[in-house]
Amino acid sequence: MKLLEDRILKDGKIGAGNVLKVDSFVNHQIDVAFMCELGKEFKRLFADTEVTKILTIEASGIGIACLTAQYFDVPVVFAKKTKTNNIYADVYTSKVESYTHGTTYDIVVSKQFLTPGDKVLIIDDFLAKGSALKGLISLIEDAGASVVGAGIVIEKAYQPGGELIRSMGIRVESLARIASMTVEDGVKFVED
Amino acid sequence: MKLLEDRILKDGKIGAGNVLKVDSFVNHQIDVAFMCELGKEFKRLFADTEVTKILTIEASGIGIACLTAQYFDVPVVFAKKTKTNNIYADVYTSKVESYTHGTTYDIVVSKQFLTPGDKVLIIDDFLAKGSALKGLISLIEDAGASVVGAGIVIEKAYQPGGELIRSMGIRVESLARIASMTVEDGVKFVED
Repeated sequence: MKLLEDRILKDGKIGAGNVLKVDSFVNHQIDVAFMCELGKEFKRLFADTEVTKILTIEASGIGIACLTAQYFDVPVVFAKKTKTNNIYADVYTSKVESYTHGTTYDIVVSKQFLTPGDKVLIIDDFLAKGSALKGLISLIEDAGASVVGAGIVIEKAYQPGGELIRSMGIRVESLARIASMTVEDGVKFVED
Repeated sequence: MKLLEDRILKDGKIGAGNVLKVDSFVNHQIDVAFMCELGKEFKRLFADTEVTKILTIEASGIGIACLTAQYFDVPVVFAKKTKTNNIYADVYTSKVESYTHGTTYDIVVSKQFLTPGDKVLIIDDFLAKGSALKGLISLIEDAGASVVGAGIVIEKAYQPGGELIRSMGIRVESLARIASMTVEDGVKFVED
């Protein structure tokens, strides 16, 4: 999606360890009008599917998931990263590895919010190694619901997550696919 | 706001320890179309003010903040609960007590996203003892920005937070104000 690629080139910053920082418009400050355009694009891409629910993971997936859900007219459920007093004991659980933080954590969704009839579109901001996405897919399968696909804002196509998830037969639509990224040469996108 | 009060009476659940669970439409599953109506109401209530940015706190504030921000046509910034590798070192910090979890944590906002010219509306899902709201106000003041007010979905008016924040001269608009809540008698709202 050219709108997004242009914005990444303009406002994305490559930090230490080749981390792409898009926190001025995606995941710390959120450019809401811009994210609505991405939401409309997800709707266009998945227009041929039936979606009853959008699933994401806290925290930075929530904004884009909610703004996207408006165009599908469905609710959002977000998986929580730890089990708190505020969630019913009756949850689906999955493990996710965080490579950024070097830790493993549990994600949970209350069983009442994912049911066998649900057709679930996953929306998230990043796809790299695919651990969070695999965890979300596992929650959906545990619920007996079906996975419509995954809509990703930025895929690091040089990392194995996209290939891994697509090889599971899951449709993945990424609005920007980064082919390579270095401080010297900047960000290069996968050509269509 | 009658729409919200009715929904709380219909779908809110009072759990152990008199905790109000609204996780079927506010803070685990998000009824996006419904939350948009709340966002429009915040816009109506703060129509006489100038707002350049909406500030909230992860995770459950992000959805309502983003959906509300559309009607103000401003970006959202969400305070993060821990300092991660993905945030620049240059941050404003404040401490928040979590009574639900019995812990204290830091919230941070990157300095580049709160600036002296900003007129900031805080949006959050709950106001009880006011610790999170005080923390957010402190971040705004540290930035030299001004606090337009706080828009709260559900205020537990029997707890001291609302009084505390209003006594600081901050305008607080809560869409539902709970006067009392027990398993036996259910939820009672403050009468206008």
